[in-house]
Amino acid sequence: MTTPKLPAKPDGFHDECGVFGIFGHADAAAHVALGLHALQHRGQEASGIVSFDGRQFHSERALGLVGDHFNAESVIRRLDGVAAIGHNRYATTGETVFRNIQPLFAEFAFGGLAIAHNGNLTNARELRQSLVARGCIFQSTTDTETIIHLIATSGAGGVVDRLIDALRQVVGAYSLVALTGTMLLGVRDALGVRPLVVGMLDDAYVLASESCALDIIGARFERDVEPGEIVVIDSGGLHSLRPFPVGRRRFCVFEYVYFARPDSMVEGLSVYETRKRIGAELAREQPAVADIVVPVPDSGVPGAIGYAAEAKLPFEIGIIRNHYVGRTFIEPTDRIRHLGVRLKHNAAADTIRGKRVVLIDDSIVRGTTSIKIVEMMRHAGAAEVHMRIASPPTMNPCFYGIDTPDRDELMAANLSLEQMRQRIGVDSLGFLSIDGLYRAVGEPRRFAHRPQYCDACFTGDYPIALVDQDGGHRPVQLSLLSEAV
Amino acid sequence: MTTPKLPAKPDGFHDECGVFGIFGHADAAAHVALGLHALQHRGQEASGIVSFDGRQFHSERALGLVGDHFNAESVIRRLDGVAAIGHNRYATTGETVFRNIQPLFAEFAFGGLAIAHNGNLTNARELRQSLVARGCIFQSTTDTETIIHLIATSGAGGVVDRLIDALRQVVGAYSLVALTGTMLLGVRDALGVRPLVVGMLDDAYVLASESCALDIIGARFERDVEPGEIVVIDSGGLHSLRPFPVGRRRFCVFEYVYFARPDSMVEGLSVYETRKRIGAELAREQPAVADIVVPVPDSGVPGAIGYAAEAKLPFEIGIIRNHYVGRTFIEPTDRIRHLGVRLKHNAAADTIRGKRVVLIDDSIVRGTTSIKIVEMMRHAGAAEVHMRIASPPTMNPCFYGIDTPDRDELMAANLSLEQMRQRIGVDSLGFLSIDGLYRAVGEPRRFAHRPQYCDACFTGDYPIALVDQDGGHRPVQLSLLSEAV
Amino acid sequence: MTTPKLPAKPDGFHDECGVFGIFGHADAAAHVALGLHALQHRGQEASGIVSFDGRQFHSERALGLVGDHFNAESVIRRLDGVAAIGHNRYATTGETVFRNIQPLFAEFAFGGLAIAHNGNLTNARELRQSLVARGCIFQSTTDTETIIHLIATSGAGGVVDRLIDALRQVVGAYSLVALTGTMLLGVRDALGVRPLVVGMLDDAYVLASESCALDIIGARFERDVEPGEIVVIDSGGLHSLRPFPVGRRRFCVFEYVYFARPDSMVEGLSVYETRKRIGAELAREQPAVADIVVPVPDSGVPGAIGYAAEAKLPFEIGIIRNHYVGRTFIEPTDRIRHLGVRLKHNAAADTIRGKRVVLIDDSIVRGTTSIKIVEMMRHAGAAEVHMRIASPPTMNPCFYGIDTPDRDELMAANLSLEQMRQRIGVDSLGFLSIDGLYRAVGEPRRFAHRPQYCDACFTGDYPIALVDQDGGHRPVQLSLLSEAV
Amino acid sequence: MTTPKLPAKPDGFHDECGVFGIFGHADAAAHVALGLHALQHRGQEASGIVSFDGRQFHSERALGLVGDHFNAESVIRRLDGVAAIGHNRYATTGETVFRNIQPLFAEFAFGGLAIAHNGNLTNARELRQSLVARGCIFQSTTDTETIIHLIATSGAGGVVDRLIDALRQVVGAYSLVALTGTMLLGVRDALGVRPLVVGMLDDAYVLASESCALDIIGARFERDVEPGEIVVIDSGGLHSLRPFPVGRRRFCVFEYVYFARPDSMVEGLSVYETRKRIGAELAREQPAVADIVVPVPDSGVPGAIGYAAEAKLPFEIGIIRNHYVGRTFIEPTDRIRHLGVRLKHNAAADTIRGKRVVLIDDSIVRGTTSIKIVEMMRHAGAAEVHMRIASPPTMNPCFYGIDTPDRDELMAANLSLEQMRQRIGVDSLGFLSIDGLYRAVGEPRRFAHRPQYCDACFTGDYPIALVDQDGGHRPVQLSLLSEAV
Repeated sequence: MTTPKLPAKPDGFHDECGVFGIFGHADAAAHVALGLHALQHRGQEASGIVSFDGRQFHSERALGLVGDHFNAESVIRRLDGVAAIGHNRYATTGETVFRNIQPLFAEFAFGGLAIAHNGNLTNARELRQSLVARGCIFQSTTDTETIIHLIATSGAGGVVDRLIDALRQVVGAYSLVALTGTMLLGVRDALGVRPLVVGMLDDAYVLASESCALDIIGARFERDVEPGEIVVIDSGGLHSLRPFPVGRRRFCVFEYVYFARPDSMVEGLSVYETRKRIGAELAREQPAVADIVVPVPDSGVPGAIGYAAEAKLPFEIGIIRNHYVGRTFIEPTDRIRHLGVRLKHNAAADTIRGKRVVLIDDSIVRGTTSIKIVEMMRHAGAAEVHMRIASPPTMNPCFYGIDTPDRDELMAANLSLEQMRQRIGVDSLGFLSIDGLYRAVGEPRRFAHRPQYCDACFTGDYPIALVDQDGGHRPVQLSLLSEAV
Repeated sequence: MTTPKLPAKPDGFHDECGVFGIFGHADAAAHVALGLHALQHRGQEASGIVSFDGRQFHSERALGLVGDHFNAESVIRRLDGVAAIGHNRYATTGETVFRNIQPLFAEFAFGGLAIAHNGNLTNARELRQSLVARGCIFQSTTDTETIIHLIATSGAGGVVDRLIDALRQVVGAYSLVALTGTMLLGVRDALGVRPLVVGMLDDAYVLASESCALDIIGARFERDVEPGEIVVIDSGGLHSLRPFPVGRRRFCVFEYVYFARPDSMVEGLSVYETRKRIGAELAREQPAVADIVVPVPDSGVPGAIGYAAEAKLPFEIGIIRNHYVGRTFIEPTDRIRHLGVRLKHNAAADTIRGKRVVLIDDSIVRGTTSIKIVEMMRHAGAAEVHMRIASPPTMNPCFYGIDTPDRDELMAANLSLEQMRQRIGVDSLGFLSIDGLYRAVGEPRRFAHRPQYCDACFTGDYPIALVDQDGGHRPVQLSLLSEAV
Repeated sequence: MTTPKLPAKPDGFHDECGVFGIFGHADAAAHVALGLHALQHRGQEASGIVSFDGRQFHSERALGLVGDHFNAESVIRRLDGVAAIGHNRYATTGETVFRNIQPLFAEFAFGGLAIAHNGNLTNARELRQSLVARGCIFQSTTDTETIIHLIATSGAGGVVDRLIDALRQVVGAYSLVALTGTMLLGVRDALGVRPLVVGMLDDAYVLASESCALDIIGARFERDVEPGEIVVIDSGGLHSLRPFPVGRRRFCVFEYVYFARPDSMVEGLSVYETRKRIGAELAREQPAVADIVVPVPDSGVPGAIGYAAEAKLPFEIGIIRNHYVGRTFIEPTDRIRHLGVRLKHNAAADTIRGKRVVLIDDSIVRGTTSIKIVEMMRHAGAAEVHMRIASPPTMNPCFYGIDTPDRDELMAANLSLEQMRQRIGVDSLGFLSIDGLYRAVGEPRRFAHRPQYCDACFTGDYPIALVDQDGGHRPVQLSLLSEAV
Repeated sequence: MTTPKLPAKPDGFHDECGVFGIFGHADAAAHVALGLHALQHRGQEASGIVSFDGRQFHSERALGLVGDHFNAESVIRRLDGVAAIGHNRYATTGETVFRNIQPLFAEFAFGGLAIAHNGNLTNARELRQSLVARGCIFQSTTDTETIIHLIATSGAGGVVDRLIDALRQVVGAYSLVALTGTMLLGVRDALGVRPLVVGMLDDAYVLASESCALDIIGARFERDVEPGEIVVIDSGGLHSLRPFPVGRRRFCVFEYVYFARPDSMVEGLSVYETRKRIGAELAREQPAVADIVVPVPDSGVPGAIGYAAEAKLPFEIGIIRNHYVGRTFIEPTDRIRHLGVRLKHNAAADTIRGKRVVLIDDSIVRGTTSIKIVEMMRHAGAAEVHMRIASPPTMNPCFYGIDTPDRDELMAANLSLEQMRQRIGVDSLGFLSIDGLYRAVGEPRRFAHRPQYCDACFTGDYPIALVDQDGGHRPVQLSLLSEAV
């Protein structure tokens, strides 16, 4: 098995994971496959689906895109049953190997259980060590398996009580879906850092990371799962449990900046409209004397539309993206590796030439892409390049389910604004303020003593304890096994 | 070998072919691979590269995208030499089988020759029959092979004279590149229907269908090959021959409407800027009382920007395209096949709801996509949908290298404007006029008695004789062999 | 992943598993791959290798033949280290799925451990149920994993003590190899049902199911591991432990009849010479008035040579085997399925025609192959066919690591000798007696009250308790998960 | 596409090609696939089948074994029709590339024709040059294509006359089958160097290289096609044409020594019985004082049986062949490459130890395998090794369709008998005499002035002119194209 090269944004915060579940609908697995396809932007490395047919569980897991494996009728037919859950994976902890593809399935004395998880436990290593010490055998390096062993060794009675018991021991951010022989479960951590929504398709309940996964199957959006809520869906309908102490809601604000799909509604807001408002705030905070506004495709587009409208400047698709790039083109020779970003993007030179350009990107992480894009703008003849970033400087790594570089690779954590401007090679550089970002999501401003969102990547204010992270942020290797794929 | 499902616009004029050649540069084949990648929009079914290393020719041909095969260092290394040509294929004549992948290579008494061709010969069948009658053995069903046999059986002397002799016998539209042991050749038919440009990379000459393929390798655009011109590139540089009677230039206007990449310059015009002008003309000819202008992604984007600016309406990305669709997701079950267009597109419902929408598409071919997109707009809550098409009604098939449906499948050839409006389900429907299109490409209007472009798909005025096409436009099957791939 | 069709004897007792280990030799994994290749006849469905590089374990597992996956330098290079173990699998318990490929690897509080196992535990189900009840999570359906959980939950101290503790709880036949960070371990059950030998290659110790796997790497045969012995190989050399009560040796006599490779020495006897002696005994017990002796290839060859020599009849290769059959040719149509055995065998008709043929096969299981082979002999013109079987009638299934049909599919368990003769269509049919078989392996006769071998398949005398097997011999399904491969 | 490693005898005369055809039977292609499977020993690199369905020809060609590709129902179903021909290829001329896989198909003014060919034209290069000079385009480097162009450019009338016209111009050894829209044709060259037989399956005619390919489908052997005969099979039955001057029959004697399958009848003789007679002749000519006779598997087996019977010595399978080797195991590391022959063979050491061994092989080509086998015998403890070769010394390359090394690589062409004995490391070495070989095939002796067989590899007496072979025997490269597969 080879690991295909994936079309993730190479210089960015990597997407995390997407989860999807459905209960009570014929063709359950086919719907999960579609839902995962709509959530592909949240994880492109691997996918898995587990279904239950009333008697047996069926599992299919594969590296690559959803459509690479779950497009085949034969695969879907093997996933028999009216209830199923699925997962798209972008590695957060655990090497990307076959054994780590979710959903994970386990058999307990009380029956089978499949779990899929978006997020990250910050005390996974500590828990794992104590579980191994008492004789638990780990097969994967995912923190999802930690939850499974906590369930297996729980003294509680039924599966829901065991799950509650297990989750009381974990620290972290998570939105998870689980499937038993009789129930579909959905859980969000007490702060609701990662999204999870409930929908309905005919009489069937659906759980999904984002509403765009409801749209693709024609399901109706019902509501967000609440922070700290467990939704239990069985043949009697949906029941809500609230076994955890209620925390203050701290939804991840970066979902609006970059992660979520623009056509999704998350936590009550349209992502596309929010990004336009971010662009408008940016235009007010960081105006520029210029001729045109050009987005870095595709994530900069809504922000650029908002900026252009507010600044009353023309919006131009000045950078063309080659849609055929993606996962297959691996640069063959050194000579070509230098061509770099051109495989994916090209300037519409006639549009750029002689113009003062406002270039809009959603964020700056390492800054390497920005440098290449600006070089391309210069080569195309831009008279001036004014870069405007639709978020504050990203200064801190995420421990809550996003794959981020170490702090010393984050450009904004290591350079001053002026140093960044010079390194990127622009005539001016401006970021949105944290309060501007909060205004765009409908808040008057950030309340410093009880912030309304998780914004640790911008502010360093981590709302959930970092148990395993003593100093460095990279978790130590969890397994003695280096299994090649 | 399986034929992968390809990401072409399913309801549209299919792209044709792309050609690329380079002479006198180390790493020639790697540059051809990149050029073909930039021209991927002109043909996604198969690609081939032939190089010459001073002693032997090397050939690699593969089904699928350029990056699927020509990304491997081992493949590129086998294509040794400082001169190479390549081809992206979308089947026009000939079943899509391995034997039809270009460039075709043949050995003559005078040496080897590789040819790749964008266009279509309208007398290929007639020529083939007479060649077979005299003992020629055809291995493919491409009209490129017809040219090869004409060269082989020519009484003329050198390879260039034999090529001229061959091309004097063919009728059709073509831009071709050819490689011998000493020369790179580029030819455009006398009317210059299909594009072909010359560029330079350091001291090496480059030929390409569009300028975006020069950009990707950092080559400098020099000029278009002229209609009826043969450029002969050898160690002494570039020489121009004009052996054919000079016709009137009739470049394909649909290249501006849809085929060419927006970042290309073709025949002196920026495609992106031209499309914006088309949108502006459309706004003037077909205004609408509306709230927002929304493009059908991605081909409708520049037209929508032009329309919105002229109409002073907000431009909105109201339809989100899933970039992970493409060639891999084959709908698994009937239930899901009905979901249809949602695999690729989703409405940003919050943006559409309650709005009067101007929906911009580049053209209407069968109309099936339009119907689904409009349905999606209605489902998202659009108050009104006014469809505006950035070209005149397409009423006639193309015989010059574009894969088009039969006339009886072209919506505009079979329904009145009002019937089309009802079928598509919009509140109003408007097309650009043919004179509006000509204005957008810089002409005062269409000169009916000597039209400046080939616009047969709109007007039925075919500038090149249709020798094989007696009545129906589908060529009869050329071969007794049905070779599965 | 698809399961390739494998070249096992379709109508026979299926081979079991082969194990191999090496400690203290550069290129350890490459040697394991070769050893597994030599043991391929013991299991063709899947193989795995685990190595330890002094710091990390490396694991590679694959469906198919050893040479299909472990032939690649890149694979072997990933299996770094000077100690490694490997396994060839033929499914005995557990569906043949990826998760069941051995060696299994687990991490304990005290470090990592890989185990590979040839044999079958007869109380695996019972043990599994009690382990699951106390919170153990099983990932496979192999009984090897049962041993792993017994080790993990053992209260004993070091890894060897934990292994001893675990093995004291299991009932069954097994030869296993295990690898820790400091040791290579080899164990045979107390009766020594399955083989395991020790060899040396330079200064490195080698463990293997059969001596032919020593030959392939040029290693020297040292001795058999003794029944009930644990050999502990570490940097200090080989240490022998005897923690289990000493049972009476009951080596599987069918290893001589069919399983072991003819060039192996097992338990002190040459398999090839033993098979010739079996043939000679058979000739004495079951003579025939005939012209030629013909083996059913390839397993009948040594017996036929022994028979022919004793009977003073010519030995003839009267049936030719097509070596290209094997795992790839899947019969395409119904018409062809009827041709059946001819894909693999053809009679040398000129040699058979008009002759009275003694046909030698090693055993009769279902009898379907015999019927077809005899039909082929008749079609080739044999005057008479006298079938002689180089073992007693196989009347009972094996529960000690061999995949056998249920009793109701065993021809000899359901038909009288005369009925079998008629069904197979031969002029006469004769089996070797159980005492004749014992004489061939060097015993005076079978001692009924303390038999020298395990011969349960012939006699029904099972030397190890059948804990899980209440009535039927097929184990119930162990897992709720039906994971397709 | 990768070229799989094939299970040919690495140090030997390589097999040539196998052809098969059937006319007038439903499921024609499935029967061809089976026939080619039975002929797999004649060519393992690639196979192809062409069928005709009454309207269209269908072609499938693939690298690898017949069963790798033609086992799939979908493939066979695409090869519709009641008439079909097929071919197994071992490269003789032409690099092994996809374009060279036969049958070749061509379309003429009079219709389609597929041809498959076993043999070699000795004037192919000369003919090709003159055909290219007159404008023929070659797509392959097979000499089969030369025949096709001769047919295409023939002035004769019908397809049979054109074929006769073409064959009158070629020099060489060939057995060919051809398929038109109405006929199946079979031809053998005037000397009948390569075999071709006629069989019947129900009412359908079958053509095959050897009778074993009739057996596999249950067809009845009718007769050999005669040297210089054309059999024309159409709906009216089989017609025989004899358009060529009658030569003296010179069938290839090496077919009996090694190429043909032992269960085939060729030219009226059983191959197995002939090989036993060869062994008996060898025992008479080259006796040895010894204990056992051991064949080099598998080709030495019948000769060893004949030798042992004549010498009244025990026949022993002293060398065990690993049937799982074959095409998949590519030695991974240098260390392992040295192990060499052990991947395939192992001595049954207990049988060899202390014995004086007569080792029987069919022939010695380069001698490298012999050296390794003898080393293995010594290592196993043989007291003496007496090598006896079941044919005369092979001193000359073959130009008639067999892939042989150059003369300077043939051990017997470069060393004296005593030098060979020393190099191979045996106590004595003996070859069969040419007259002994002739006696074994039923002749009194070789008639030097009109030899009854082609025995050029032994005698250097080439019965067909070597037109292209001026000096060296390797044909010059036919094509300027180096197409990787």
